[in-house]
Amino acid sequence: MRRASREAARAGLSGLIVTPSADLIYLTRYDPPPLERLTALVLRPDRDPILMVPELEKPRAEHDGVGKLAELVPWRDGQEPYARLAKLLGRRGRYAVSDRMPARHLLGLQRAAPSVAFEPAAGVLAALRAVKDAAEIDFLRRAARGADEAFGRIADERLEGLREEQVAARLADLLLETGHDQVAFTIVASGPNGASPHHEPGGRTIQGGEAVVLDFGGRVGGYCSDISRTVAVERTPREFEDVYRVVQEAQEAAFRAVRPGVPAEEVDRTARAVIERAGYGDRFVHRTGHGIGLDEHEEPYIVAGNTTPLAAGMCFSIEPGIYLDGAFGVRIEDIVTVTDTGAERLNHASRDLRITA
Amino acid sequence: MRRASREAARAGLSGLIVTPSADLIYLTRYDPPPLERLTALVLRPDRDPILMVPELEKPRAEHDGVGKLAELVPWRDGQEPYARLAKLLGRRGRYAVSDRMPARHLLGLQRAAPSVAFEPAAGVLAALRAVKDAAEIDFLRRAARGADEAFGRIADERLEGLREEQVAARLADLLLETGHDQVAFTIVASGPNGASPHHEPGGRTIQGGEAVVLDFGGRVGGYCSDISRTVAVERTPREFEDVYRVVQEAQEAAFRAVRPGVPAEEVDRTARAVIERAGYGDRFVHRTGHGIGLDEHEEPYIVAGNTTPLAAGMCFSIEPGIYLDGAFGVRIEDIVTVTDTGAERLNHASRDLRITA
Repeated sequence: MRRASREAARAGLSGLIVTPSADLIYLTRYDPPPLERLTALVLRPDRDPILMVPELEKPRAEHDGVGKLAELVPWRDGQEPYARLAKLLGRRGRYAVSDRMPARHLLGLQRAAPSVAFEPAAGVLAALRAVKDAAEIDFLRRAARGADEAFGRIADERLEGLREEQVAARLADLLLETGHDQVAFTIVASGPNGASPHHEPGGRTIQGGEAVVLDFGGRVGGYCSDISRTVAVERTPREFEDVYRVVQEAQEAAFRAVRPGVPAEEVDRTARAVIERAGYGDRFVHRTGHGIGLDEHEEPYIVAGNTTPLAAGMCFSIEPGIYLDGAFGVRIEDIVTVTDTGAERLNHASRDLRITA
Repeated sequence: MRRASREAARAGLSGLIVTPSADLIYLTRYDPPPLERLTALVLRPDRDPILMVPELEKPRAEHDGVGKLAELVPWRDGQEPYARLAKLLGRRGRYAVSDRMPARHLLGLQRAAPSVAFEPAAGVLAALRAVKDAAEIDFLRRAARGADEAFGRIADERLEGLREEQVAARLADLLLETGHDQVAFTIVASGPNGASPHHEPGGRTIQGGEAVVLDFGGRVGGYCSDISRTVAVERTPREFEDVYRVVQEAQEAAFRAVRPGVPAEEVDRTARAVIERAGYGDRFVHRTGHGIGLDEHEEPYIVAGNTTPLAAGMCFSIEPGIYLDGAFGVRIEDIVTVTDTGAERLNHASRDLRITA
């Protein structure tokens, strides 16, 4: 919280307002239920932190220890929390609010404090959160290892004849068996469904000769795993081996482009160049990657336009893909961390083409 | 969507902007992953609905059928979605945004459309969602029945000697066994922890002579259950029977106060009067209830200041409680629905004092 206040001051802000989210967990470890009542941490340079909490959650805040880190200011059902919070902010100033603050709260606050300017806290908080310390990288490493093992095990099982949703349920079990505390998501996209990057697994039965995109993750100690591998069942579909080779090469080239000081967008450009050269540029329909930590997706985004220089300790995905409508998709994704001299993969499951049963 | 547009026009709005949430599910059944890219439904009176989607989720939107309900406008990673959305809104006007739109999107939109006014959509969408149709009430009824059965079964099991977190895990299993598709939350608060209404179950071992607050729910077809019962293990603690009787009486009185036309706050006042008369007014630290549907908590809130008249089809909790620091808490909660002439309970588990093993 001290570092966040300092960064806020450096950015010319009067302070930060943080509602329940990974931002709040990062700053205080406090993680109340995501309901509609306003909970808001107010950080101001040279002032003690204040946490506005619904009165009924004050005992929980005390029990969870956040009462020792911030002064608890309870408000009661039937009271108007925004006027109260506005009073804490003062009559003028520029406050940054956490990205996920619900619009209802922001609009209430804007109305209660019409002469205060609000802006996204991403610039300050995301920059802090983007660089992980050793303990955070350790959680990410353990999560990645579990995801690797879950992939290894599913790839050894029979996929042919199963419905996507069955494979998704099995992946969820495997994530828990491999040390995750929680399952976050399990994409299983077979055949033509693979061309939908965020496909929701359904009743489609996986058949021999089809590609299957597996993209899944969970949490270890709050930190996320996220891995994608694409397998062929029994035999490869037409054009698949060529496309696979291109994606694998793009993934490898992007990984080799990572080192401190390189702009995030350069990693995206590197992956994209390989895919464009092979003639599939317009079928790579998303950015190359996203930061990962307490949120599945966070800064740094590996995307055109993001000139943020990479720094040691940043952790993000490298996940180029090619999506052929009506046929299949291929995506290969590892989480990597920036080291002092280059990068290290946290995932170690083989990226070579795998034919499963 | 037509009704929502009509209500928006009646409220003098230029339109509604709805991001992923129960609002979007209610209007379109579309439920994309809750990630950081902007997805936004734009509803304007006398115009066809538009859904801005990240390009990589366009196939999912088509697959899920929302492509038939709204014109899909994809935007690509690296592009700026807010300027694009602002263009759709026009140069002036008043738009309502859904309560849970992340602040980052709202601030981006406010910057891109500085002459457009934004306000919470609660007034329009919440009013629509608050009155349930027969199919919705049927889901809520099935969810409530499952929750009743889960309570009946846990109350027949031995609680003494178990840790709160074990009972919570057991309740989660029971919710799934009794027909829920999903577990939402499981509060188990024993002894003094019962005085924390939103206690998170932990390692505390339940002992004989203690009260235990059980408050849990899940989803059936997207619709929520939410029930609270307070049991005494083996024998009642001191003062417990008196407090229990007061809460039970308050719950009953509030239920009897429900009928069409009565202001929501009147139901709160009725429960509170019983508890105040018994001398525990300052220990009833929350409102009497909340609406329930696709969200665990939604309109109508049963709280002082909410003068909304109740109407047939509204569904909400009645859950007075008394919380004695360092000793125990008591909360009794049923979901009820407003009928043409009064109210009907959706929960039927006995509210009488229950001594468990």
